[in-house]
Amino acid sequence: VALDEFELIRRYFGTSELGFPVDGVVKGIGDDAAILAIGVDEQLLISMDLLQEGVHFPAACDPLLLGRRALLVNISDLAAMGASPLCFTLGLSLPHADPDWLQAFSEGLADVAMAHACPLVGGDTSRGPLAISIQVHGTIPSGEALMRSGATVGDDIYVTGTLGDAAAALKFILAGESVPDVLLNAYYEPESRIRAGIALRGLASAAIDVSDGLLADLGHILDASGVGARVHLDRLPLSPAFCDAVAVHQQVELAVSGGDDYELCFTAPPDCADRIHDALGRLDVGFCRIGEIVSGNSILWLDAQQQQVRLTARAYSHFRND
Amino acid sequence: VALDEFELIRRYFGTSELGFPVDGVVKGIGDDAAILAIGVDEQLLISMDLLQEGVHFPAACDPLLLGRRALLVNISDLAAMGASPLCFTLGLSLPHADPDWLQAFSEGLADVAMAHACPLVGGDTSRGPLAISIQVHGTIPSGEALMRSGATVGDDIYVTGTLGDAAAALKFILAGESVPDVLLNAYYEPESRIRAGIALRGLASAAIDVSDGLLADLGHILDASGVGARVHLDRLPLSPAFCDAVAVHQQVELAVSGGDDYELCFTAPPDCADRIHDALGRLDVGFCRIGEIVSGNSILWLDAQQQQVRLTARAYSHFRND
Repeated sequence: VALDEFELIRRYFGTSELGFPVDGVVKGIGDDAAILAIGVDEQLLISMDLLQEGVHFPAACDPLLLGRRALLVNISDLAAMGASPLCFTLGLSLPHADPDWLQAFSEGLADVAMAHACPLVGGDTSRGPLAISIQVHGTIPSGEALMRSGATVGDDIYVTGTLGDAAAALKFILAGESVPDVLLNAYYEPESRIRAGIALRGLASAAIDVSDGLLADLGHILDASGVGARVHLDRLPLSPAFCDAVAVHQQVELAVSGGDDYELCFTAPPDCADRIHDALGRLDVGFCRIGEIVSGNSILWLDAQQQQVRLTARAYSHFRND
Repeated sequence: VALDEFELIRRYFGTSELGFPVDGVVKGIGDDAAILAIGVDEQLLISMDLLQEGVHFPAACDPLLLGRRALLVNISDLAAMGASPLCFTLGLSLPHADPDWLQAFSEGLADVAMAHACPLVGGDTSRGPLAISIQVHGTIPSGEALMRSGATVGDDIYVTGTLGDAAAALKFILAGESVPDVLLNAYYEPESRIRAGIALRGLASAAIDVSDGLLADLGHILDASGVGARVHLDRLPLSPAFCDAVAVHQQVELAVSGGDDYELCFTAPPDCADRIHDALGRLDVGFCRIGEIVSGNSILWLDAQQQQVRLTARAYSHFRND
């Protein structure tokens, strides 16, 4: 029986034999990053992502863009916690050592590393199928990390930017079709939401980055917070390029289930709305209020007439369909 | 042209565009672990290892033993710095989700995690060829980390335990031959040298764990310290099981070039000899003085008559022979 990826993690690695409490570890498994206490005033956040050729990115993709994307998607986990990047490590498995590929890949990493003042501090290489494992480290004033578990009934639900652009790009890439530049950029060079995450400290009650799709990632907030949600499908932020390229009847499904957006999905009490508007407006970060936290444990999808809609979309999972 | 693994790392990832200095990062690439400043009194050490089926461990190996070994070899990097384990993260790529395999593998991890009070705090899973990427985090009082770069001319060179046992086991495993239990244990369950590393704080001038073989790893100390070494081959510590199982004419080559020992190789001034004897003796950790640091940049191998010996052994490298 194929297992859902998240179920897999929970069942075998979420045990008290492995994830037991120790001094210095504030938060272990279960959020975008683990939290370690460093000194009195600051906490260290660590987050790891594994990217596999053919699973997380297309075979034979441009190594410069791949390097940028590999680090950006990891930094996105720090953004979702409201943290500042500190440094990263790299585990790189390669079928062979191609100097041109390595040169371009390391340049891509360096672009993002320098833009975020987040240097490489160590790692390991091995011969094997192309796979990239990056761990980022970030810092935050003690107790200010934006957790998945803080959403409460009555909170508004927001997303930054637009949804579905990267999923649309990937769809065209895999079909061998041409891809509009705007969508391709969204896939290979997602905007870093680090500054937005920092601006949301003290305002957002919960946050996550949309890596596996809104359906899955908002679901993680609901699970961790023990609440449900109402989402208004007519308020989903869709880009003009997305609306041009994707057939109307496929738009909602793709925007809701497609991964790789790396926008922030966050919740906040209604009385924070003005301050959120100011904080994100100052950074010129677009955002939309798409729904509300309600009691329950699932997502109600509503159309413009407030009628409930049944989606056929399912959360993306690496293990579900094998 | 096939590149040496270490040359590969240096050439593409040792650039100032990637490994630039930032506040909070005391030591980046180039030692067993990176060092981050945490608060005033303590430093955080992080180290990542990538283990690939067929490269770092045999295909179809026992998942319980694999889990233990995967974490132990990472903790060995902390031992080589004199650090105390804090926590670890896991990146796991799997061809399919086999519950029995996962159960046994996570039990193996948990055995070592609990023995070292070093919990799992996060990670990622993916479908793909079996590969394990583990990052360990440890702490040390500020400035006390044992670096590769501290060896000076006149220092003695030591190794803990015995050399070559794991390499002999791997040789028999790969040849499909039966393996004496003592050697098999050395391969799958290397002794943790954490307590030895902590005991050597303030005594050892440089240290490394022997993961790629004495030839390669002592070489890293010499490179980082800008010195050479004389090693007395008749003083290499060989176990009775190793001497029984390996033909006499192959023993030195295997002990010197074979990886996976995870013993500590360290240097110390001669006037520390008594205190080292006391510190390691209290822990019941065997050790041998095998040579001296000299000026130069290479290793002179000497026989019992102090005559120079030419070894045909070469440092193990994942990339050299492909």
